[in-house]
Amino acid sequence: MNALPEPVTTLVAALGRLPGIGPRSAERLALHIVQTDPGAVRQLADALVGARERVAACSVCGALTEAQPCAICTHPGRDASILCVVERALDVLSIEKSATFHGRYHVLGGKLSPLNGVGPEDLRIASLDARVPAESVHEVILALGSDVEGEATAHYLAKRLSTTGVRVTRLAQGLPAGSGLEYADDLTLARALEGRRDVQ
Amino acid sequence: MNALPEPVTTLVAALGRLPGIGPRSAERLALHIVQTDPGAVRQLADALVGARERVAACSVCGALTEAQPCAICTHPGRDASILCVVERALDVLSIEKSATFHGRYHVLGGKLSPLNGVGPEDLRIASLDARVPAESVHEVILALGSDVEGEATAHYLAKRLSTTGVRVTRLAQGLPAGSGLEYADDLTLARALEGRRDVQ
Repeated sequence: MNALPEPVTTLVAALGRLPGIGPRSAERLALHIVQTDPGAVRQLADALVGARERVAACSVCGALTEAQPCAICTHPGRDASILCVVERALDVLSIEKSATFHGRYHVLGGKLSPLNGVGPEDLRIASLDARVPAESVHEVILALGSDVEGEATAHYLAKRLSTTGVRVTRLAQGLPAGSGLEYADDLTLARALEGRRDVQ
Repeated sequence: MNALPEPVTTLVAALGRLPGIGPRSAERLALHIVQTDPGAVRQLADALVGARERVAACSVCGALTEAQPCAICTHPGRDASILCVVERALDVLSIEKSATFHGRYHVLGGKLSPLNGVGPEDLRIASLDARVPAESVHEVILALGSDVEGEATAHYLAKRLSTTGVRVTRLAQGLPAGSGLEYADDLTLARALEGRRDVQ
């Protein structure tokens, strides 16, 4: 017989719809939930609803924010002339953590993928076109992934932006920091060699 | 600067306290939550609170249930004379899925672990002692894990129950179903050989 009470089954189904949570993990999480402190569960539920209700995409750059526009777009210390184009809001977080970029962002909301029916009109490309002249942008950094779709999106954007006269750059490709040659695949090694730099 | 709005940080912290959810997964889940359908988020929050409020451990066997006692303990078709002792409520689910057991359960709530300070008084062993005569149990199946602590718990319970005259059995150990010899470790092979059976 089905040994799971109905509320647990409902919870397993809801958890299983989250990305990266398989049926086994959902089951394990649900069983943890029903046996844990009720206050902690209530806190998690409130955090879920609170985050969803209070956070939205920034109307300018597309990053996640409570205020409109976001703190980065309105920060006086950020250089408005450099725009870093990323695929997802998560990427803004990664780059901010590295603390090496002081311009502004533009979140595309995905990458071009003809096979999945994602064309330029499905991404935040029109607003990128508008921002470049409106904010007197001098450089657009294409900080996209080095997978096939990321490369294709970068090529598309570079071509599209070439008419505006703005400088378009891309992230360097090469060995990851702290990694040995033996872990690098052929293509990474090829890119690292192509992009080699003089020792100062 | 910190690119995550405060409600997202709160959500990441709450998700990160769940078992098996590391900081990276918590971040990815939180960013999914704030960008997904608000109705689905509300549904998940309700499922969390609902499961925690409506589900508790069965007062008799310790399995998870909405009603007291649980559906297995009260089912007239289940054989009360066979008691299957498991470590966690999750194990009841696994055995019920196999659909090969028709007795009742007793959830210990853990296994003996002197190193972690878990002694017999921390597990549901006193209530097991009480159930064996009260429910006229003829056989106790120790369905515990084959790790060191599971083995130690099984030995302890077998010795403790030996004075009652009840038949005490253990799960067979051997090759997992559908697995080749090349994937079995030495100990599993040794157990499989020791437990060999005549071909009918």
